Amino acid sequence: MPNYRAPQRDIQFVMHEVLAMADHYKTLHGSEDIDAQMIDAILAEAAKFSENVLAPINASGDEQGCSWDDGEVTTPSGFKEAYALYVEGGWPSISHSQTLGGQGLPESLGTMINELSGTSNWSWSMYPGLSHGAMNTIETHGTQEQKQQYLLPLVEGRWTGTMCLTESHCGTDLGLLRTKAELQEDGSYAISGTKIFISAGEHDMVDNIVHIVLARLPGAPEGTKGISLFIVPKVNVNQDGSLGGRNQVKCGSLEHKMGIHGNATCVMNFDGAKGYLIGPANKGLSCMFTFMNIARIGTAVQGLCSAEGAFQGALEYSKERLQMRSLTGPIEGGRMLAYYLSQLNDTITRNSDSDEAKEAEVLLSLLTPIAKAFMTETGLESANLGMQCFGGHGYIREYGMEQIVRDARIATIYEGTTGIQALDLLGRKVLMTQGQSLKAFTKKIHLFCKAEAENEAMAEFITPLMAANKEWGELTMKVGMAALKDRNEVGAASVDYLMYSGYVTQAYFFAQAAKISQVALAQETTEADFYKAKIFTARFFFSRLLPRTQTHATTMLAGADTLQDLDQDHFRF
Amino acid sequence: MPNYRAPQRDIQFVMHEVLAMADHYKTLHGSEDIDAQMIDAILAEAAKFSENVLAPINASGDEQGCSWDDGEVTTPSGFKEAYALYVEGGWPSISHSQTLGGQGLPESLGTMINELSGTSNWSWSMYPGLSHGAMNTIETHGTQEQKQQYLLPLVEGRWTGTMCLTESHCGTDLGLLRTKAELQEDGSYAISGTKIFISAGEHDMVDNIVHIVLARLPGAPEGTKGISLFIVPKVNVNQDGSLGGRNQVKCGSLEHKMGIHGNATCVMNFDGAKGYLIGPANKGLSCMFTFMNIARIGTAVQGLCSAEGAFQGALEYSKERLQMRSLTGPIEGGRMLAYYLSQLNDTITRNSDSDEAKEAEVLLSLLTPIAKAFMTETGLESANLGMQCFGGHGYIREYGMEQIVRDARIATIYEGTTGIQALDLLGRKVLMTQGQSLKAFTKKIHLFCKAEAENEAMAEFITPLMAANKEWGELTMKVGMAALKDRNEVGAASVDYLMYSGYVTQAYFFAQAAKISQVALAQETTEADFYKAKIFTARFFFSRLLPRTQTHATTMLAGADTLQDLDQDHFRF
Repeated sequence: MPNYRAPQRDIQFVMHEVLAMADHYKTLHGSEDIDAQMIDAILAEAAKFSENVLAPINASGDEQGCSWDDGEVTTPSGFKEAYALYVEGGWPSISHSQTLGGQGLPESLGTMINELSGTSNWSWSMYPGLSHGAMNTIETHGTQEQKQQYLLPLVEGRWTGTMCLTESHCGTDLGLLRTKAELQEDGSYAISGTKIFISAGEHDMVDNIVHIVLARLPGAPEGTKGISLFIVPKVNVNQDGSLGGRNQVKCGSLEHKMGIHGNATCVMNFDGAKGYLIGPANKGLSCMFTFMNIARIGTAVQGLCSAEGAFQGALEYSKERLQMRSLTGPIEGGRMLAYYLSQLNDTITRNSDSDEAKEAEVLLSLLTPIAKAFMTETGLESANLGMQCFGGHGYIREYGMEQIVRDARIATIYEGTTGIQALDLLGRKVLMTQGQSLKAFTKKIHLFCKAEAENEAMAEFITPLMAANKEWGELTMKVGMAALKDRNEVGAASVDYLMYSGYVTQAYFFAQAAKISQVALAQETTEADFYKAKIFTARFFFSRLLPRTQTHATTMLAGADTLQDLDQDHFRF
Repeated sequence: MPNYRAPQRDIQFVMHEVLAMADHYKTLHGSEDIDAQMIDAILAEAAKFSENVLAPINASGDEQGCSWDDGEVTTPSGFKEAYALYVEGGWPSISHSQTLGGQGLPESLGTMINELSGTSNWSWSMYPGLSHGAMNTIETHGTQEQKQQYLLPLVEGRWTGTMCLTESHCGTDLGLLRTKAELQEDGSYAISGTKIFISAGEHDMVDNIVHIVLARLPGAPEGTKGISLFIVPKVNVNQDGSLGGRNQVKCGSLEHKMGIHGNATCVMNFDGAKGYLIGPANKGLSCMFTFMNIARIGTAVQGLCSAEGAFQGALEYSKERLQMRSLTGPIEGGRMLAYYLSQLNDTITRNSDSDEAKEAEVLLSLLTPIAKAFMTETGLESANLGMQCFGGHGYIREYGMEQIVRDARIATIYEGTTGIQALDLLGRKVLMTQGQSLKAFTKKIHLFCKAEAENEAMAEFITPLMAANKEWGELTMKVGMAALKDRNEVGAASVDYLMYSGYVTQAYFFAQAAKISQVALAQETTEADFYKAKIFTARFFFSRLLPRTQTHATTMLAGADTLQDLDQDHFRF
């Protein structure tokens, strides 16, 4: 992507003005003394790193890809060196507990950093990204000894981690997985099976890789209730932390993919590899979910990354207004939503006994599938729009735009496809709670609208937001009623329901951005252009993107009949 | 793409039942004796060729791509052999005049064949596709001598052709092109300049390539009125038709593209190459348009191809109903529209002095930009949906689905981007004719609706179609009024207007398909499943896709303000 520049001012707008992160940090255990200056300093450092280290190896990484030789994987030129600089900068430890050598900064700062690394070099950013998932899992569920042995080197960045879930016969339905774990005399387990789509499963950046593996104990219950979680190191680790012999886990091959060529997507063969149970037996899947929610926020951020990348590329090439506007919408709305989710997550993890934490739990579980699916879908749309701005040149590798589209394409699939997110949202999050989780959010929107009801200048945003918020509840009732009669209605309505929810959610954040900007302009800010642009973007969103809810509202109520009353035979040709 | 099977029955439905092609052919000069059996026989042969010859080299062609060595281009394994079989089968001559060694069959049969070759192997099908454009241009504008010398070998398939329009500094705006043509003593012209994005510009399939080149004569008027058209052979041709020495035209390099790797996209350098004026001086662009309309129908068909390919791939993998339905919509609607356009084109070219021809002219000019942009946009959407059905595997090369997405991605760009088509539709075709061309089509829809007004069984289709048809006219009035005040409104509304028009147009064809199927079922057809599926697909379109018009209707009237009242500064970051 041509000349990436970290959008620092736009990020500050969300961190300071929309979400008041510094005040928020004062409510978090161990983060009380993070102020705005510190946030800006970290942002500036992350900006330098992503602009000067990651962006320059983005296109070459795509061109070269990773190579496999008898189980060893070589990453593209510069990837290993970039990772060394990343460790040198202390980035791996940023949001991990000080007792484990971490810096104890909140997850939301990690989200901010992920945006920059993900936009400047999506493939590279997946290596630390997967490590982060493994670290969170060990930090939450590991024993003290496991933390000492495996988490410390991960926090220091000396090792990286993976998450080994998928098997060739089961993607989403992990209940079917077959990898087995047999207890050995020394208390460890022998792990045997094959995992696919393992990102960063093997590479040349570090001495050791810590695999978090889902497997079954002998005689474990069928399905998802019989899955346990194991730590399986690439190289065995001695008591003193030094490296022992090679473990029986090997990368069988690399997948040839449409994009993210710089990331090693591995088939991993476990052949009686030494593993250690982490968390309670047969509770592996629920342990995974700790990591899942964060991972889904991370993927939502990637949707924002592809939009930002496409915007910057297209901006250099053309200033064609319609497309430019169409690109800034998803970026700015997505940034506010994703950062807000990471703020909720901070509250849950660092202020856990507060009432806010309880509300945050509800809101996070509702908004996570919306953010993941909506932001990756609109991110892909934006990547294609950015490419379109280039005309024929957009299709040519050298311009870097088609890479953004190829990289972005995976995001609507991994960490649960758009369809899976939609079922999770409508089925588990909304209908199974009798709409309580939705009410918790629509109430916030309602209160915001009420507070602005008398504000003439905000009417252009508040009136449609209020209407959409009301309609959201009404549509939920209708879909719920239909679902009581026929379960198929949930599946038939789910994707339209999710996209509808995404637009309304973003409208809420754009209205807040407009409000903040109006205040700033009223106070005669020196950044009039900046705040005017925020209002124009909000206006564009309300007039050109929010109307998409009309179609989604109609189609989510179209019913399941058109999908169900069809035999297999009708598909013959 | 896995196991391509030509959808012969679905094509017969459109050819025989929707468009009654055999009756239509009876009205065309020189096509009177083509009956349904003959159409089916040609279809069956084309099906064999695409299934057995083209499909097997589709994935390998993508993997290998084309290679360049000092101006010579090697196509992927099997491409040359497939082309030889294509010539052996007499396919190149199919729709060209018998006086030139052609078979004199109508263009619409070519469209049918293009669907099969385009779905089974998009990249390969572009080689004969470009030849066809060159042939049409020479047949329409060439002298007898030029036809003898250049068209005959093209018709026989011994040579192929190209269209050389684009230059690096001008894509759509051909008025800026710089390639010059200087008269020589022998009456020929010396052509000098560089053309980019030349599909099939150089390859190893034939002995000679006939380039149709846009260039400027010395002192020609500025802009589009100073462009002339030239024939520039790769190898000079002697009077007796034998090959002479190499002409001064050479492939400078191949583009590295996101997809269509099997097609050679060339930078062509003309260095005082010998060329021959074709058509009147400075009238080159209008001559080009003969070819342009056919080319745009051809590209529209490619949109259908990517949907069909995605559908067949996904069908093998999953029978997930929602996605399957979503895929059949664009395919079947697209097929009816594209074949209808080629039928109109038949009437214009082969029944030119009829009243039908005058009406066909109007309808074709209106519907061509709709078909090109709408079918390629929905085709790309379908390709992505098909890939989505595969989950993670869809992103892996081996499954063939991501290739369909990469190949399909070019179609919304070349032959005029979606934005260009939208401006052509709303600006030139609709508003500049004061809506007359639109009325010619909405009147046909209105008459169809009136004829079915009393038919209870058709009400579910006729009622929404009638409403949409009426709204189409009303929206056109509103956009037209707004455009009178501010020209920017045209650009701001155009893409939504085009997509809106696409959905209404398809609704008209789906209603016809439903009507035909109801009649067949009433007559106790032996193919009940087939006709039921047609009705279900129509129902799916009306309930799940047609509602997209709601959003387009709102956004096309959102006005240009949100796009215009923004300075460059607002895009700074």
